[in-house]
Order: sequence, then structure tokens, then C-alpha cells
Amino acid sequence: MKKLINAVEDVVVDSLRGVAAAHPDSLKVDLDHRIVLRASGPVDGKVGLVSGGGSGHEPLHSGYVGRGMLDAACCGEVFTSPVPDQITEATKAVDGGAGVLHIVKNYTGDVMNFDMAAEMASMEAGTRVESVVIADDVAVQDSLYTAGRRGVGLTVLAEKILGAAAEEKRDLDALLALAQRINEGGRSFGVALTSCTVPAAGKPTFDLSDNEMELGVGIHGEPGRETTTLGTAADVASQIVEPILADRDFTASPVIAMLNGMGGTPLIEQYLVWGEIAKILAGKGVTVARTLVGNHITSLEMAGCSLTLLSADDDLLTLWDAPVETPGLRWGC
Amino acid sequence: MKKLINAVEDVVVDSLRGVAAAHPDSLKVDLDHRIVLRASGPVDGKVGLVSGGGSGHEPLHSGYVGRGMLDAACCGEVFTSPVPDQITEATKAVDGGAGVLHIVKNYTGDVMNFDMAAEMASMEAGTRVESVVIADDVAVQDSLYTAGRRGVGLTVLAEKILGAAAEEKRDLDALLALAQRINEGGRSFGVALTSCTVPAAGKPTFDLSDNEMELGVGIHGEPGRETTTLGTAADVASQIVEPILADRDFTASPVIAMLNGMGGTPLIEQYLVWGEIAKILAGKGVTVARTLVGNHITSLEMAGCSLTLLSADDDLLTLWDAPVETPGLRWGC
Repeated sequence: MKKLINAVEDVVVDSLRGVAAAHPDSLKVDLDHRIVLRASGPVDGKVGLVSGGGSGHEPLHSGYVGRGMLDAACCGEVFTSPVPDQITEATKAVDGGAGVLHIVKNYTGDVMNFDMAAEMASMEAGTRVESVVIADDVAVQDSLYTAGRRGVGLTVLAEKILGAAAEEKRDLDALLALAQRINEGGRSFGVALTSCTVPAAGKPTFDLSDNEMELGVGIHGEPGRETTTLGTAADVASQIVEPILADRDFTASPVIAMLNGMGGTPLIEQYLVWGEIAKILAGKGVTVARTLVGNHITSLEMAGCSLTLLSADDDLLTLWDAPVETPGLRWGC
Repeated sequence: MKKLINAVEDVVVDSLRGVAAAHPDSLKVDLDHRIVLRASGPVDGKVGLVSGGGSGHEPLHSGYVGRGMLDAACCGEVFTSPVPDQITEATKAVDGGAGVLHIVKNYTGDVMNFDMAAEMASMEAGTRVESVVIADDVAVQDSLYTAGRRGVGLTVLAEKILGAAAEEKRDLDALLALAQRINEGGRSFGVALTSCTVPAAGKPTFDLSDNEMELGVGIHGEPGRETTTLGTAADVASQIVEPILADRDFTASPVIAMLNGMGGTPLIEQYLVWGEIAKILAGKGVTVARTLVGNHITSLEMAGCSLTLLSADDDLLTLWDAPVETPGLRWGC
């Protein structure tokens, strides 16, 4: 294992020290609870948005804390759910009197711990907490860590759009309804060319031979639909797009598209794949209104990429374009 | 070689197709000349900024075209200088009547081809062209591809700061003087944990064993000062900072710092290293005024990172903070 770390058990805290050092003006890092908060504190009358999950997917979630996006991120150990105590602390810290929304990726541990934290925050501080469980991965139904579909790339889009809506001071019920629309309208699918190594494990999560690719991989290296031979980028683009379009009709309204790098795939390849995907989508009558290319929800140093499509009406597009000012996503500010 | 590409010879053009598809509103891509331009065209009375170099370092340079930064980027083959014809075309295309500044990384081929292009543009179109050759890498004096110091991470900072100054309509002489100040005040040093594979070569550029690190590596995998045993992140941070501080006194004014990922090192590790570096800098009396962490000048999928420090006065900090709106760097817009 070759990594730029100190002790394996300190990876998350040491990295958060770096986050604190890099963003002293905009972020507050609570090292004890491993939560990242806006330095400016909760906003009166604004719903607080809390997300989180296992670390190793950066910039998700800690890199998405800031104006126009999250109020707090709870950082679990690498690829491990945050514990209820962390989430409770974050929930209480961001409550500006209008309640708190939890944005949760659909993994059994995450769902359970966010649920417990919601109850605890409600009991301890009287905070009204609602949650949305993102479940967008069309690759597999029920998997290693999940009942139902896994929550993957759509989480980035959900955090951006819900963040903008919260900034407008829409209330918790409106945000819940919006979250539901996002969840219904979004789909993702990913592929891996290599595995990745969780520091505490010290060896790759799975094996792929020199000409193999994992189709439908999960963001923790969970198996997908099949291990197959790696073809050209055009082949891979088609293998990514097909299952998404087979699952939902994306021709009815324009889409927001994210071509996401898993961590170890350079941007030159990500743009290349996006070029191929854009061609296919155009041929299928899908109109792309907005595009995001880059490492936005990663799996440590895994090579590969994923595609997320989200059906977007004017409201969603306006919220997408609204100002955002976080380390990982920034525009309009 | 596992890469998301079609034919090896089409990597750059295929990737630029993706850039065009992703940023139709802000960028214009000339596939024939492999140059990326602002869609809005040249600005009257503004100095045009042109940079470029071998591909494989994205977001540098194509990802830095846009308001507040470059007017055009010339994309060579992977790790290969762009040819004079491309650069001439870009230079003529961005001339808004106030001349053009070439921002060139110090590699023999780049310097030669930008020089030839400057002459050609001057002869063909009467454009006044000046150039700055960035040479910030303290690792080696004279290397595989370079006389003098290599141009690396400081290029990102130079493009940002000069871009802001050009947007203010400072004239070409003022930009040249500013470029000189940046060049004098900036230093970089990088380490690699793995090599990377140039598509046309099909195999890794160099070899490192499981516990080795290359100290002072170049952005094309050029050898550095020595191959050494990989220690903790704290050790590596010190190995990166020491040669930079040994080369220049950074205590006299605040610095802009960039902790750059080489491509294959996840953000969680980059922040972790930045945390260690920030500690060392504080101990040495260096005041960090601004910090940028992430993949900004990469070497395909190479694992590793580099540090760039730039001494900054108020003028440089104001230019650094000025609005920028490019795919790779965006704030204040």
C-alpha cells in the first residue's frame, strides 16, 4: 500500500486537519466529532442540510460544505458509516430554527445511523429532522451493503440543488418534496478499471486483471453486474449509458449530466468519455442542459468513471445555476 | 495499459471533443489546430493570454481558458510540445489589439515552439507578442528536457494572476513586469509514488518499487533528486518543504500556496499532506494567505503531489482573489 498518510487509524482526522488549515475562513472543523461545518454558523430561518458517510469519496461530503450547499458533513472512517453521535452533533449545530434535512446515501449503515441521530437530535434539542435517502444506482438491486438501490452520484446533484433551495429559505416540507423529485428523476451507473485500497485493509478491495473492467461497480468497490473485457472508450460509454436509459426515459425533459471520475482516472480520459457519451445521448434524443465533468464522488484512487443523469425542469435548472461556494463546487459567487 | 480511450493517436482530439461538448457556452474548441478558446472571442484593448504545452496535465491548460484567466490554450500530444502552427493560430485568434502574452513552461521544445509562433504571428498579423518562461522547480538544475529549472506548478498561479491583470486591461509591459515578479517569487517541488503511462508508449515511464518514492519528480515523470524510501506523510511533507525554503526566504511576505495532486492521489491524502505542510510552514514563520488544494497540474494518473509557494504582496493577492470562470478554477463570478 503506497499512500501519503501517517498512521492508518489517523487518516480521517489528519486529513480533516488539512481541511481546517486550507479553509480557515469558510469552514469550521470539529476534530473530536469529525464534522465539517460552515464557519459562519447556522442561518436563522434556513433549513440546515446535513450529509455525510464514509470518508474516501472526497470532495463528497466535506468539500460540499458552504454557502449554497451543505451546512455540515459527517465524516466516517474510510468507507464506513459515520456514527450516530457525530450526526446528532452536526444536526444540532446547524439548526437555525427551521428544521434539518439529512441527505443520506442508501447504504444500510448510513440509513440506520442517520435515523438514530435524527431521533436523538429531536429528543435532545427538539429539532425537527427529515431525511431523504438517495438511491440512484441502476447497476444492482440489493447489494453487499444495501437493501434496494445504492446511493451514488446523484447525491452530489441533490446536495447542490437542495442547498440552493434551502438558501432561498424554502421550508422543510418543500425541500422534502424537492428531494423526492430529484430522487425519482436521477439515475447513475459506474465502471471501474482498477480497485482501490482502504488504508485499514492494506490491500486492494477486489482484483481485476489487465484487460478487465467491472461494470456497475459501487463506490466502495462493491461488485456490479459483471466483470467484462475493457473495450474502447466508445464501447464503455455505451455500456454506461444503456442501463441508465433502459431504466428511465430521459427524453421528456432536459437533463443535468455529471461524468464523474472515480479518483484515479485522469481528466483527459474523463472528457474523452464524456465526448462519447454526449454523442450517444444526442443520438437517443436526450437533451443535455448542464454538464459537470470531474472528480466529484470518488472511491479513493480507483480508476473508472460514472455517469449521473437527472431530469430537470426549470426550477431544478435555476437551483443548479444558483451561486455555490464550497471547496469542491464553486460558481456564481 | 488500462485507459478509457479509443485509438492511441486520437486521445487528444477525442478528449477535446468532450471539452467542446461539456462547455458549449463558454469555450470554442478548434479541433483542427487543437486549441481551446473563449467562446466570446478576443476582448478589445485586452492583452490576449495564450498558454499551452503537452496534454496530460489537465486541467492545465485547456481547463484554464475563460474569463479572468487564459484566452487560449494550445494542446500538444500527451507530454509533447504543441507545434508552432497551433500556437500561431491561437495567438492571432486572441489578439484584441493590445498584444499577446505567451505563458510558457520551461521545457526546451515548448520554449522553441512558442518563440517560433511569436515570430510567425508577428510577421503574419503584426501582433506584438511577448512571453514569460515559468521556471519554478527547485528540484533540479538542467534536466532531461530543460535547460535551467523546469516550469511546473507556478504556471497555474501565473495564469490566474496574469489573467486577472489582463482582465483589468493592464498593458503588455505591465503584464511582463508582473510575470517577472511571479517567476521570481515562486518555487515548487514534487514527489511521485507511482509512474504514469503515456498512451503512445503503452508502458509506465519509470519504475518505483512498492516502498519507493521519487523526490523532485518532474511533471512528465522526469527523474528528480533521488529515489528514496516512502515515509509517513509528515516525513514527505518535510522532504517537500525543505528544498523550497532552502531556495528562497518565504518569511518576508505572505504566500499563496498550492498543494497539487499529480492525478492518482486522492483528495483525502492531499489534504492530509497539506495539514502536515501547513504545520511546518507555521513553525518556520511562513504566513499562508491563500491555499489551493487539488488536482491542478497533473501527470496523467501519477500518484504523488507537489507544493508551490509564491510570495505575494497586496497586488498579487487582489489579483488572486479576482473573479475567475474556467472549468478548472472558478470563483467570484
